[in-house]
Amino acid sequence: MNLENDKSYKIGFYGVEASFSHEALLEYFGNISNTLSCGEFKDVFNALDRGVIKYGVLPIENSSTGSINEVYDLLRNYGFYIVGEKCIKVNHNLLGIKGASISDIKEIYSHSQAFMQSKEFLENKKLKLIPYFSTARSAKYISEERCKSKGCIASKRAAELYNLDVLQEDINYNKKNYTRFIIIGKSMEIDHGSDKISIVFTLEHKVGTLYNILKHFEENNLNMTKIESRPKIDSPWQYYFYIDFYGNLCNKNAQKVVEKIKNECEYFKLLGNYNADCITS
Amino acid sequence: MNLENDKSYKIGFYGVEASFSHEALLEYFGNISNTLSCGEFKDVFNALDRGVIKYGVLPIENSSTGSINEVYDLLRNYGFYIVGEKCIKVNHNLLGIKGASISDIKEIYSHSQAFMQSKEFLENKKLKLIPYFSTARSAKYISEERCKSKGCIASKRAAELYNLDVLQEDINYNKKNYTRFIIIGKSMEIDHGSDKISIVFTLEHKVGTLYNILKHFEENNLNMTKIESRPKIDSPWQYYFYIDFYGNLCNKNAQKVVEKIKNECEYFKLLGNYNADCITS
Repeated sequence: MNLENDKSYKIGFYGVEASFSHEALLEYFGNISNTLSCGEFKDVFNALDRGVIKYGVLPIENSSTGSINEVYDLLRNYGFYIVGEKCIKVNHNLLGIKGASISDIKEIYSHSQAFMQSKEFLENKKLKLIPYFSTARSAKYISEERCKSKGCIASKRAAELYNLDVLQEDINYNKKNYTRFIIIGKSMEIDHGSDKISIVFTLEHKVGTLYNILKHFEENNLNMTKIESRPKIDSPWQYYFYIDFYGNLCNKNAQKVVEKIKNECEYFKLLGNYNADCITS
Repeated sequence: MNLENDKSYKIGFYGVEASFSHEALLEYFGNISNTLSCGEFKDVFNALDRGVIKYGVLPIENSSTGSINEVYDLLRNYGFYIVGEKCIKVNHNLLGIKGASISDIKEIYSHSQAFMQSKEFLENKKLKLIPYFSTARSAKYISEERCKSKGCIASKRAAELYNLDVLQEDINYNKKNYTRFIIIGKSMEIDHGSDKISIVFTLEHKVGTLYNILKHFEENNLNMTKIESRPKIDSPWQYYFYIDFYGNLCNKNAQKVVEKIKNECEYFKLLGNYNADCITS
């Protein structure tokens, strides 16, 4: 996408200012201010649906804790497209109000994902962990409470924005902790640089159906980067499969593979063809 | 397993009394009282590790919201085995203290999964949703708070146990809402009735490796019921694959398939062979 000349439209993102989605937005679109903060994942989809925003930015996967299931489900339900991807390094920090020290902290607020990603640091400490809406909203809450015994887990950007002290930095156990964000839009946006294709489909529940789908990637030498399964509501223990693979739909080979897969599925949807930012090491 | 004659040992479960894991335990093992309530998923694994309990009961998947990722990771990290499976129908209810009515409720406490599973009921109501540890612990908390404006989402069994009123029943949007529980033990327990095999493995990241694994199921006419991917820590965007399929390891065909898969994987672990309780409709 060439966005250089058009920054008049609004971009929505999940969370408040200084959230990791906000950081992904700034890195992807540049330093624009015409943004819309959304309290829930669904609010981003709703805003796009109503035409309030042109694009939305949401987390879809973390390299330590895995997929953000709700975003996978919303993407399918709303019928929007992935037009871009941004990978952000996520470091968590223990924050407190100015003047607090680590030994003052008795209660920690944060998103449950941040607790999981910092579990080794938190282990065997007598701290009360209180699940809260997001890391950045936790920082906002702590700054308003102004209580030395209350801390939160959030980014250094959140510490700056909400005037908090970093009591312990980089408490995430996995030092290669990344979150993959997607940029969603109402239409597909493909150009010759697009190198990643995302699809979602369902199959008849019988022996070999998934195998027959994967055969097309193997036969056409297309590298699959991710397979994710999500439950089919009303059909317990049956699944939607989400697959990402390298390819460009301007290319006949990739077109042919997508067409063949489509014909073998009960349900099929092309979710997008965009520039990969998260490269498998 | 024939447990009829030996109820002397202790069974651990996730959550407090009246949690869905507790219900799964009672349905699987019968009405035994020698149980251990565990506050976190990991506590069940720790208790098994220390020999405090003989078996543990944990949720691993919900038919509306999908896999419980943390349990998949713990299962691999601790090296324990799945020895059984139990499927429980999960209905959520809005509960309040005795004498409260729906219009009194301003704040609702529950596990985030219960909010997700009841999202259609909660939509467009001016209610503050407060994420809490579990549905049953939320019910316990509400019963202690004794405040008419505070409600929770939990089971009818929790309402009975904590002396709360059911203000609205069955608020989960998916009426076919089931949770699949696993029973874990320190050793494999296979008999001729075992019909489900669970494995976990990693593959070299190149074209066709997953396809080559699935080929073995197709060639041997073994039905795969589930594939789940979980991140490999320290290798962003690479995955562990968890696969469940129908088979019995007393049978040469299934043995041969497992042996072949093992030889093609970087890492491989057999997680168990047990009686399936959750049948794909």
